[in-house]
Amino acid sequence: MKNHRFVLFGAFLVMAGCSSEEGQKTAARDPLAPYPPTGVTREFELTIDETQWEVGPGAIYNAIAYNGVIPGPPIEVDAGDHVVLRVTNNAAKPHSVHTHVVKFTYTNDGTHNSVVAPGETKTIEWDAVYAGTFPYHDHGDEAEGTKRGIFGALIVHPPGEAKANEHVVVLADFDQGEYDSLPGVADPETGEFPDAGVYHGGHQYMHTINGKGYEDAIPAFKGKVGELQRFRVVSIGNEFHTWHIHGHRWLDGSGQLTDNVQLGPGMYTTFEFMEDNPGTWLVHCHVGEHMEGGMIADYVVTP
Amino acid sequence: MKNHRFVLFGAFLVMAGCSSEEGQKTAARDPLAPYPPTGVTREFELTIDETQWEVGPGAIYNAIAYNGVIPGPPIEVDAGDHVVLRVTNNAAKPHSVHTHVVKFTYTNDGTHNSVVAPGETKTIEWDAVYAGTFPYHDHGDEAEGTKRGIFGALIVHPPGEAKANEHVVVLADFDQGEYDSLPGVADPETGEFPDAGVYHGGHQYMHTINGKGYEDAIPAFKGKVGELQRFRVVSIGNEFHTWHIHGHRWLDGSGQLTDNVQLGPGMYTTFEFMEDNPGTWLVHCHVGEHMEGGMIADYVVTP
Amino acid sequence: MKNHRFVLFGAFLVMAGCSSEEGQKTAARDPLAPYPPTGVTREFELTIDETQWEVGPGAIYNAIAYNGVIPGPPIEVDAGDHVVLRVTNNAAKPHSVHTHVVKFTYTNDGTHNSVVAPGETKTIEWDAVYAGTFPYHDHGDEAEGTKRGIFGALIVHPPGEAKANEHVVVLADFDQGEYDSLPGVADPETGEFPDAGVYHGGHQYMHTINGKGYEDAIPAFKGKVGELQRFRVVSIGNEFHTWHIHGHRWLDGSGQLTDNVQLGPGMYTTFEFMEDNPGTWLVHCHVGEHMEGGMIADYVVTP
Repeated sequence: MKNHRFVLFGAFLVMAGCSSEEGQKTAARDPLAPYPPTGVTREFELTIDETQWEVGPGAIYNAIAYNGVIPGPPIEVDAGDHVVLRVTNNAAKPHSVHTHVVKFTYTNDGTHNSVVAPGETKTIEWDAVYAGTFPYHDHGDEAEGTKRGIFGALIVHPPGEAKANEHVVVLADFDQGEYDSLPGVADPETGEFPDAGVYHGGHQYMHTINGKGYEDAIPAFKGKVGELQRFRVVSIGNEFHTWHIHGHRWLDGSGQLTDNVQLGPGMYTTFEFMEDNPGTWLVHCHVGEHMEGGMIADYVVTP
Repeated sequence: MKNHRFVLFGAFLVMAGCSSEEGQKTAARDPLAPYPPTGVTREFELTIDETQWEVGPGAIYNAIAYNGVIPGPPIEVDAGDHVVLRVTNNAAKPHSVHTHVVKFTYTNDGTHNSVVAPGETKTIEWDAVYAGTFPYHDHGDEAEGTKRGIFGALIVHPPGEAKANEHVVVLADFDQGEYDSLPGVADPETGEFPDAGVYHGGHQYMHTINGKGYEDAIPAFKGKVGELQRFRVVSIGNEFHTWHIHGHRWLDGSGQLTDNVQLGPGMYTTFEFMEDNPGTWLVHCHVGEHMEGGMIADYVVTP
Repeated sequence: MKNHRFVLFGAFLVMAGCSSEEGQKTAARDPLAPYPPTGVTREFELTIDETQWEVGPGAIYNAIAYNGVIPGPPIEVDAGDHVVLRVTNNAAKPHSVHTHVVKFTYTNDGTHNSVVAPGETKTIEWDAVYAGTFPYHDHGDEAEGTKRGIFGALIVHPPGEAKANEHVVVLADFDQGEYDSLPGVADPETGEFPDAGVYHGGHQYMHTINGKGYEDAIPAFKGKVGELQRFRVVSIGNEFHTWHIHGHRWLDGSGQLTDNVQLGPGMYTTFEFMEDNPGTWLVHCHVGEHMEGGMIADYVVTP
């Protein structure tokens, strides 16, 4: 929110001969084959800060976050890039950066000796040799840091990827005990005002899309008819979700037609569809309590 | 239960030349390719009514339901049919019909201006151009209506589908606060009788198959050796389930051998197997608490 | 722990001509085609005993278990084997053995008349005609027995299976009401010592890998660079898990690259990867509360 100290030092070296013949179906590739090195090194600076994060109007969360924002800034690279992260921990406890599927050695894992003590800076390195969308997140003390907001999305583009309108979706449940204030919504039965993120059986402001709860606070996703839409969805926390987009459908990773994909904590999916259906659509987690708790937004498609 | 005012106005126009060459593996088809229009329009009338629904002997739920039954009547059409639903809301709050995967415009989505106010009737239209089994359900006020029972299954048959003995399974969790009465099962520790659907750590009458809990209330599924069995399973509500059939196995949507498939809220699957194993088998959700809470039934196979 | 009365009576008859041409990708096989009979009968003796099971140092669980151990002994056979289990129930209530995917008749299902009364012995028989890893577990009284620890893994090797370093992983949640003692970890807020497996919002010693909680109690998984690693993961109980291995990746059953697979109760997966990344890695359920509750272990890879 404040504190967007996200720095891309940029690409230093680009290898020649980056072929475009891979603009075909990725299904034809062996998914276990790493992409060859691009020769490019991408550097990112991440800080870990305690912050007051506004989940929605009047709903203030005692958060810890990468660069002060929830989710942390997208880390966006090309498959084959070498990634260098300089991580500074300004919070009171040890934290780190762990991620998924990319290659790294044991000492760059975000656990053990790559955890960053309060006040320290450490550098970790990855080889992003597989394309896709993955969560990156704290691993300093099991799950406490991710509950407080220390997570984001890593995006690895394959060579020759089709041009698309991209949407990054980070699903997370927030710890109801960490709310500093909540909006003045009285319990319809008791007339009392909630103080811990939950009222009347629902889980108000608990379930978030990109760090925010409900349509009023979550910026609408936007698309245009005739544009390829690509959704990159990752999930983090304690809950299992089903991500539903009204009025649209796509193939999931196993090739099945769907409009509702399931993601447990630490899971991720990337899918796309050609936009052909204008209107203001709901996108939401299909779990009743999660939708009631904030995990619902608009997807506005213009003709 | 009462109130089965389900009307099929029928097929008006059948296009010639409905080929039967598609009785092959559906895997060969591009799952994103819509089926061509049949030229048939199917009309259905759905009412939304408050009702006392008997989940099991003595377990009365303060329900709201399509046509007074939980699940609502199956909406069964052929791929390529145009579907017209006339929805009348007899309940106290706004409700609607939303569904999955079929094509519809923004104004037929069951949200925004296709929500039906109390006392009103609205007509919505879909093109059922993809085959499969999908949930249809209320979207009037996020999750409240589905918790009360406003849901059902939509069945879209592909052309040339193999003849089978069909089983429709709608999994749902019920809101324990909405039980009006429960059977006289005393808590074994306290001797007290439950009044809210839960006792002794279990979730009695909370977890339902086709609107009912436990083998006594859920009509047994029935099959015969030598018959192709087709299960159409949809899930709605707050919970994730795993649907297990004893003594049988099949290929899931991604082609893996299984006897236990996972469905989160809003998810759906259709699978089939050739019956070869006579006996009285259990079918149930494999989540311990859900089985204990009612999500268990018999599947009786005769030789 | 004590009481490892696991007896393999051995193989009686081995058919000639066991071809090795199946050392290829199993993907090419029709997954619904049963493996032909090997002519081998494998006999196992299982007892069901009440026991005090040490989930971790000082955490004693009032368990019921096959052969006194949680999980029960692996039942390991070759695809095509006939399996005979002699089951003796030394516990106070009726219990049984049910399993998944293998072929058995209605009377060998672990329900109805194959449930074993206290003090009795019964024999059940299966044909293990499909390869994979599956849970076996009590079905005497719905979910009570599995909550207490009556479960294990069944391993069915396909012919020509590649030689690998095998890891069996049984994920289960334990019933917090059944702990007899817990380690002396005071609640940091109240100073009180927990007596039911839960403190401070976490679920201490609730979530187990192979019957144990946390790295101190769970024997480390071990591998070597250059060795094929095969993980056989099954899940049982009330919870959904995502099984994550740090620093590694593999293809899931549907052919997608992943490092984090989802398993609900009764689900199972077998996957493998060539080891190339030395170090001490974490393996854990990615659900925050489950990791905090004990479902976390080490995977030590030597060069």
